[in-house]
Amino acid sequence: MYLENIYSPEDVKKLSVKELNGLSGEIRMALLQKLSEHGGHFGPNFGIVEATIALHYVFNSPKDKIVFDVSHQSYVHKMLTGRKDAFLNPDKYDEVSGYTEPKESKHDFFIIGHTSTSISLASGLAKGRDLNGGNENIIAVIGDGSLSGGEAFEGLDYAADLGSNMIIIVNDNQMSIAENHGGLYQNLKALRDSNGQCECNYFKAMGLDYMYVKDGNNVETLIEAFSKVKDIQHPIVVHINTLKGKGYERAEQNKETYHWRTPFNIETGEAKANYGQTGDYSEVTARYLLKKMKEDSRVVTITSGTPTVMGFTPNRRQEAGKQFVDVGIAEEHAVALASGIAANGGKPVYGVYSTFIQRSYDQLSQDLCINNNPAVLLVFWGTLSGMNDVTHLCFFDIPLISNIPNMVYLAPTCKEEYLAMLEWSIRQNEHPVAIRVPATEVISCGEPVDTDYSEPNRYKITHRGSKVAILALGSFFGLGQSVISLLKKQTGIDATLINPRYITGVDSVLMNELKADHQLVITLEDGVLDGGFGEKIARYYGASDMKVLNFGAKKEFVDRFDLQELLRANHLTDEQIVEDIMNLIG
Amino acid sequence: MYLENIYSPEDVKKLSVKELNGLSGEIRMALLQKLSEHGGHFGPNFGIVEATIALHYVFNSPKDKIVFDVSHQSYVHKMLTGRKDAFLNPDKYDEVSGYTEPKESKHDFFIIGHTSTSISLASGLAKGRDLNGGNENIIAVIGDGSLSGGEAFEGLDYAADLGSNMIIIVNDNQMSIAENHGGLYQNLKALRDSNGQCECNYFKAMGLDYMYVKDGNNVETLIEAFSKVKDIQHPIVVHINTLKGKGYERAEQNKETYHWRTPFNIETGEAKANYGQTGDYSEVTARYLLKKMKEDSRVVTITSGTPTVMGFTPNRRQEAGKQFVDVGIAEEHAVALASGIAANGGKPVYGVYSTFIQRSYDQLSQDLCINNNPAVLLVFWGTLSGMNDVTHLCFFDIPLISNIPNMVYLAPTCKEEYLAMLEWSIRQNEHPVAIRVPATEVISCGEPVDTDYSEPNRYKITHRGSKVAILALGSFFGLGQSVISLLKKQTGIDATLINPRYITGVDSVLMNELKADHQLVITLEDGVLDGGFGEKIARYYGASDMKVLNFGAKKEFVDRFDLQELLRANHLTDEQIVEDIMNLIG
Repeated sequence: MYLENIYSPEDVKKLSVKELNGLSGEIRMALLQKLSEHGGHFGPNFGIVEATIALHYVFNSPKDKIVFDVSHQSYVHKMLTGRKDAFLNPDKYDEVSGYTEPKESKHDFFIIGHTSTSISLASGLAKGRDLNGGNENIIAVIGDGSLSGGEAFEGLDYAADLGSNMIIIVNDNQMSIAENHGGLYQNLKALRDSNGQCECNYFKAMGLDYMYVKDGNNVETLIEAFSKVKDIQHPIVVHINTLKGKGYERAEQNKETYHWRTPFNIETGEAKANYGQTGDYSEVTARYLLKKMKEDSRVVTITSGTPTVMGFTPNRRQEAGKQFVDVGIAEEHAVALASGIAANGGKPVYGVYSTFIQRSYDQLSQDLCINNNPAVLLVFWGTLSGMNDVTHLCFFDIPLISNIPNMVYLAPTCKEEYLAMLEWSIRQNEHPVAIRVPATEVISCGEPVDTDYSEPNRYKITHRGSKVAILALGSFFGLGQSVISLLKKQTGIDATLINPRYITGVDSVLMNELKADHQLVITLEDGVLDGGFGEKIARYYGASDMKVLNFGAKKEFVDRFDLQELLRANHLTDEQIVEDIMNLIG
Repeated sequence: MYLENIYSPEDVKKLSVKELNGLSGEIRMALLQKLSEHGGHFGPNFGIVEATIALHYVFNSPKDKIVFDVSHQSYVHKMLTGRKDAFLNPDKYDEVSGYTEPKESKHDFFIIGHTSTSISLASGLAKGRDLNGGNENIIAVIGDGSLSGGEAFEGLDYAADLGSNMIIIVNDNQMSIAENHGGLYQNLKALRDSNGQCECNYFKAMGLDYMYVKDGNNVETLIEAFSKVKDIQHPIVVHINTLKGKGYERAEQNKETYHWRTPFNIETGEAKANYGQTGDYSEVTARYLLKKMKEDSRVVTITSGTPTVMGFTPNRRQEAGKQFVDVGIAEEHAVALASGIAANGGKPVYGVYSTFIQRSYDQLSQDLCINNNPAVLLVFWGTLSGMNDVTHLCFFDIPLISNIPNMVYLAPTCKEEYLAMLEWSIRQNEHPVAIRVPATEVISCGEPVDTDYSEPNRYKITHRGSKVAILALGSFFGLGQSVISLLKKQTGIDATLINPRYITGVDSVLMNELKADHQLVITLEDGVLDGGFGEKIARYYGASDMKVLNFGAKKEFVDRFDLQELLRANHLTDEQIVEDIMNLIG
């Protein structure tokens, strides 16, 4: 009855505390209904219902500006700022994104999807306000899990120097995506245990004022707390203790499972379908690494807060013991740690999503590649067909990683090749090696694969034809096979098919040989074209008569795209590619 | 008398405390002599003489492993580990690099030149030790200034969970390169003021054990302290209070000036020559921005700990007041802050070295470019001809920045064009704009320049010829002019010269027009070829008859290279380029 009448935060302010509690219940019902049917971030939103209501009760959004870290907990905010229909009406579920989005609402100030950024972004809003002589409240809402990222620390350090209004709500639900790791979390516990009173206080040590709210799921208490800090003239941290998944027992009990869920059955909690294209490569990876770690005590698997991307469920983490390290959401540290372990005789394997490895470019370059330490990186979901939120695009890792000297970036095309590359990368002591884990269903090549990849940039001819050669990289090898077949069928051309395997360089011997009986080389890569693999080939042939066509994605930010549309828009179907070939040489 | 006989740390251990004090004096004399003649990091090394002696007295390097953050304070370590001659004998001054370097000595474990990495790298050594069942001490030495970087925080957070030996020496000299900024530094002060006793303690809040050493320039005290923590079985921070520049009065008084110095006169303290190719563009920038900030209170200049790269001396910082922000060494925060300021009506201009902007790729992508906020970045020293230490290479910024969607990366060729682009970038509200500040002497074009750059990727023809077209980007525009002249002189070919101006995209209209009467396009870029500007041109022409030759640097890490040799090795002299052109079309 309440939620239906909330068109803006003004409507929240009209309700009594009792009514706000009623509103909380309705919000949870709507969240449960939508998320069980549609999927999304579950636990973080269930835990922050009361705090969001209290924020909109006390502050005046959009004049007062609230920035939600990583946006995992922004659904309630969306419901209270004119977007409730996207949670109440199944036909409208897709009308809002899973992240804050200024194009959706004047109550959102940034598109945010990576962690640990809110304090820095909010302090920018505060500085902008101060330059313009404004007087609005600036509020950052950040979870305890996000505090482990270096950017959050840098933001806190700066905020203390700001000298003007800024309110940092630390939403402490005692969880990251998985459990928290790091010394900081001992201090958060000490603060909770002492009702915020313990003298040694991370936030005070950062020069910030501090307030603790023990019951962060009590609207009345929160309203009181937020009212106290409203219009404050210096930065303050309001540390609120909340329960992740609050109000849905299964989520309260299984916090990691319910951090983010695909659609599930409300009665049983069972997932409705088995999602995730790369799920099986996660399994393949975890099984291989668990076995490897048992055989070799030097091998250690590293994650930065996302252990399940490589199949490390809680049971497997326990099984791996000291040989599994979760550094929390701290990709910079993960890369440097891996470099250090490799420098002292260990065999580190760091698994990370494509979209998050970009948080550590300088560490890849300085800590790892300049030192040429033999650490192994597994880059998951490096593809156009992975996550399709603009904040989680996974197709920029090739320009990011492959242009750093000393790095060997490999693109396996099937399970056997992946495992052979992984085995070799752990065995060798020469270079940092990154592997772009295939983003396809698990495919068996049915052919013998090489076991040694120490000679750089040796591409593999899988079919020797003439006239046209197709370099089909990694996950796009299957597309290359389709193109070969279709080209043969439509034109009779028996094209050459090449598995480049190495993303980081050109096989100049082979490329030179092709000149004898080929007139066109095409490259297929499952990523952005700019700065990518294909351009290296185009540069190599620039001064020759060889024609080159590069296929991949245009450099652009796309949001919640339809994969098939994106592929067509970029001429990435076999029909389009064959047509482009024929237009050129037909 | 002492230093001459130090061939390894074993020789340090043979000395009495009195003799160690004598050694300190000799080390300072050698440092003064070398650095005044040769240049280098002055203040950090003068401050850490005693601590380094004490470390090598107490610990057993190289079994015990010491990691020096950023290496600015590693000279004394080099002197005590078999490399004293490179400090005592002018003929051998260049035999060691300015940074730790495993190829130089078994006492060095990493090549390190960027800040804030030591704790993470050292914790990797510690984890590697634990996997292998070793028992050596692992020691990280980090300055207070380096603590502001997020990676250092991530490292501390992890170290606390390590549960085994790790010793973190915090060398607190109360300075970054310039003065410190950030709330953390209030806590360091409180710790110093309370002799390490104040309850609120950043390091303890991070879950770490802690010890304070008030007189960090006293060898005896330090030996006692380090002896206490040697072989400790958990991580501990030893916070030592030192004096930057200790022992050379001018350096003690002018800490910022003496952080790093070019050769200077010992008697007067005057620099022997005016170094720094881009020094004048720093001046141009500071003068412009100071004027602009006075005219427009929304404009704010941001630095991440290196204010003088854009000419902001202490006086100018004071003059700019609230419109100048130094966030400390925190590049991630700087980019996010700029995005936030731009989102709330401010006009941020963030100036940063090419080699350090790579510390914020994810912030450029997520915080700034996805949000398409109109912040301005000035990238300094983006060139092959800047710093030549492998840790400070400045030629990877084009692949890093230019392949991010929404970013407009501009390459001015002269002073007037630079200022016009800067003026426009501050005025416009459409996109994030980065400017690759010319890395040449200040050049006046003597021609009118455009004042509006809102139409993307419009290259400018500066001379219309035929047959060959030269795209000469930014700092290499002068090279393009030389090539044109030489080509005309040697062959009579009247080539077209183009100033691309935009690094981030292809002017397809112009590129298409060139097909009419050109057969070869060459690109010149003052940076690495892989993932760079030229490859976009090669890709564009891949399917056409146009020949393309890309000139730039090979993807490799080079250390302390001779610029002329590097240019020749990469075919970047006008003679070589003309020769390559003639080989192709002659």
